[in-house]
Parts: sequence; C-alpha cells; structure tokens
Amino acid sequence: MARHTDSLESLRTKLERFAADRDWDQFHNPKNLVMALAGEAGELVEHFQWLTFEEAASLPRATREEVALECADVLLFLLRLADKLDINLAAAAEKKLELNAVKYPVAKSRGRATKYTKL
Amino acid sequence: MARHTDSLESLRTKLERFAADRDWDQFHNPKNLVMALAGEAGELVEHFQWLTFEEAASLPRATREEVALECADVLLFLLRLADKLDINLAAAAEKKLELNAVKYPVAKSRGRATKYTKL
Amino acid sequence: MARHTDSLESLRTKLERFAADRDWDQFHNPKNLVMALAGEAGELVEHFQWLTFEEAASLPRATREEVALECADVLLFLLRLADKLDINLAAAAEKKLELNAVKYPVAKSRGRATKYTKL
Amino acid sequence: MARHTDSLESLRTKLERFAADRDWDQFHNPKNLVMALAGEAGELVEHFQWLTFEEAASLPRATREEVALECADVLLFLLRLADKLDINLAAAAEKKLELNAVKYPVAKSRGRATKYTKL
Repeated sequence: MARHTDSLESLRTKLERFAADRDWDQFHNPKNLVMALAGEAGELVEHFQWLTFEEAASLPRATREEVALECADVLLFLLRLADKLDINLAAAAEKKLELNAVKYPVAKSRGRATKYTKL
Repeated sequence: MARHTDSLESLRTKLERFAADRDWDQFHNPKNLVMALAGEAGELVEHFQWLTFEEAASLPRATREEVALECADVLLFLLRLADKLDINLAAAAEKKLELNAVKYPVAKSRGRATKYTKL
Repeated sequence: MARHTDSLESLRTKLERFAADRDWDQFHNPKNLVMALAGEAGELVEHFQWLTFEEAASLPRATREEVALECADVLLFLLRLADKLDINLAAAAEKKLELNAVKYPVAKSRGRATKYTKL
Repeated sequence: MARHTDSLESLRTKLERFAADRDWDQFHNPKNLVMALAGEAGELVEHFQWLTFEEAASLPRATREEVALECADVLLFLLRLADKLDINLAAAAEKKLELNAVKYPVAKSRGRATKYTKL
C-alpha cells in the first residue's frame, strides 16, 4: 500500500486531524496562517539568498533535504489557510492555470518574462 | 469527466508543459522561483494586513476569490520550484507531517502554539 | 561622544566598510540583497504569527530584544540594497511621504485602511 | 533649507503625525505592521525575480524609481513597527552591527557567505 499519496484533499484531511488532536484550531485562523506561510517562504528564501544560479540548481544533498522540508512547510500552511477560508486549492490552481493561458498566449509570451499587463 | 483533479503530480505536469510551451524554463531556475514564491506570499499577506481576525475569517466573496487565486499562485510556483529541485512535494509533505508528529506530541503541545524547540 | 547616531548615511557608510573588510561585495548584489531582506522580513513575521493583537503589543522583554535585532537586520539589508542600487533611501522616504500625502488626503482616508486605488 | 533629512528620528516623527492625522493608529498595531512590512518586501522581490544579476544591477531608470519607492515603503513600515514596539531602530542597528562584528570576525569570514553558526 502506498505510504504517501499526492492528493491535496488527503493532505488537507490529515492536517485537519493533526490540528484538531492538538487543539490548534484556536491559532489557525486565516490571519495567523497567512503569516505562518510568509514566514516559511522567508525560510526558503534564506537557503538561496547567497547562491549563484548554478549553486541553487545543484544543492548539496543535505541542503536539498532541508529545502524539501521547507517546501513542505509552505504547502502545509497553504493547505490549512485554504481550508480555513473554504477555498478548494486544487480547483483554484486549475482556474489560475486557465486564466494564465489567456493572459499569456504562447505567441506573445514565448521566451519573455514580461508581466501580462505589459505584454 | 472531472474538470480538475487534486493530484500534485498532475498539476506539476501541466505546469511543466505550460512553461515548455512558452520557453520559460530559462527563467524558472530555483533562485528565481523561490523569489516568485516569496513575492506571491507577499501578495497574500497584503490582503490580510489591515484585517481583524473576524474580518479575515469572513472575507467578502470577491476578495475571497482573489485570495483563492493568490493561494493558487503560491502553489504553482511551489510546484515549479520543487520540480526544478527534483523534490517530490507530496513525499516531502508526508515526511514533514511525520516529523511534526514527533516534534509536537499531543500531550505536550495540546493548546499551545509554542515552537517545539521550547516545548 | 554619541555612541550611536540615527543617520541613515552614517549607517550606510559603516555597512559599506563592514562588507569591504570581509570581501562581501561579491555577495552583496541587488538580487541577493533583496532576498536577504525578504528572509529577514520573514523572521520578523515568525515572531508575531501566533500572537493576538494584545500579545503582539506587549512582548516579553527578551522577545522584544530579539525583535529589535530582527528589525535591525531588515534595516541593514535595506541600506545595503539601496546603496548597491544607488538609491538615496532618506530621499526616497521623503518622496514617498509626499506621494502618500496626495494619495491619502486626510478628508478621504481618515479612519479607513482602504487602499488609495479604492478610495 | 534641506528638503529632506536622513534622520530616522525625524522620519519616525513625520510618520507618527501622518498616521495621527488620518486616525490610522487603530490599524497600526505591531501584528498588522509586520504584515505590511512583509507585503512590501514581497513587492520589492517581485521587481527582481526574473532578472539576471546583471539586469538587477543596472535597472532601467523608471524601474529604479519604482524600486526606490518600494524601499521607502519598507523603511516607513519598519519605522512605524519599531515605534509601536518602543524600539529605537538606530540603536538596534548599531547593536546589531556590533554583534555581527563579533559573529563574523574578519579572519574567519573573509570572502565567505557562510552563516556564523557554521563558520
């Protein structure tokens, strides 16, 4: 049997249980959670701030494992936040992809990092 | 047929294709992506910065939809980042949950927002 | 003689010397510095993420001292960043205050946290 | 007469007046302000996220002016935050510089971006 799944809904449920078991819902309001998410994003950034592009793309194994766990932290708080706001994260991601496909048509955006408002 | 799925792997694949179609891999290196992620986290924070806890927990519908798309942005850049670092995000999340279960045993952490290093 | 000054220019000079002494200018390019700044902002956020408004406004002395040093980190990287971009931070702050006075006229913005674009 | 000054205390006073005039102290509590600061740091990051080191170091004039105002935003919220926490930002910066001089002795840290905990 699979030890992990890649379903957002499954992760969401586990987190809900994790928080309930610890009586943490009192802390997990949207304002706090968005701060926790920003804090974790900051930790991720700190791993990369002094690296060249090459170094960032070939992290030593130990660093890569730390970074993987920081990525996980971002995902976990993001799922909690979405949950508390009654946002279906997977549906939002699909919708955003569709919007981006319109905002960034291949012909206009190919090879350019220009924001859609300036395309 | 389902219009969206909640599989991280499925989203990862779609993003890979989206970037390839636009020749964006040249921009999507880990250092840039971690910055993009931090930028999106910042946009999320801006939605909540002046709100009370009550206001943050009951966003007007239009704001909630904007916030949902910001959450999506965070997820999409997180998936791209993990992909470029060869990190399996779902596996990392499962691992982090297991580590957290050890760091935050129910008995010691119940009802407390104390960091595990200070428990 | 004063042991510290509150002059931004004086701080900027000290930081320049500090980096030069350590041969750190090779790391202190704008892209890296903006990441370092974001990382420090994230650390600041982490101090406050689980706090109520009341707790945040009455930090224990030890926490307040840690927070003071995090605030200092933000300022120091901000000064380095501005320096490397040839931005006069004090002048920019004065200019922004003037712009804000126009964007947020007292009559329209009194008691409201509404962004100027929505006033 | 000088049109601007580079004194942190002078800026702090102006901001205090600016907020008082608009009855904004009700919003300017530490938790909100630290979020506003993180949001502004995120905006700064967004300017640089897709740039090479070279591009980041030679911004077009218009971008540099926008970035200068974002830097100003970070400073202004940082000053407000420090003010509300009764932190003397200039003194904290001086203290942090002294601590850094101890943590990063020239002999050990010359030419290395290694964190002091790993030196």
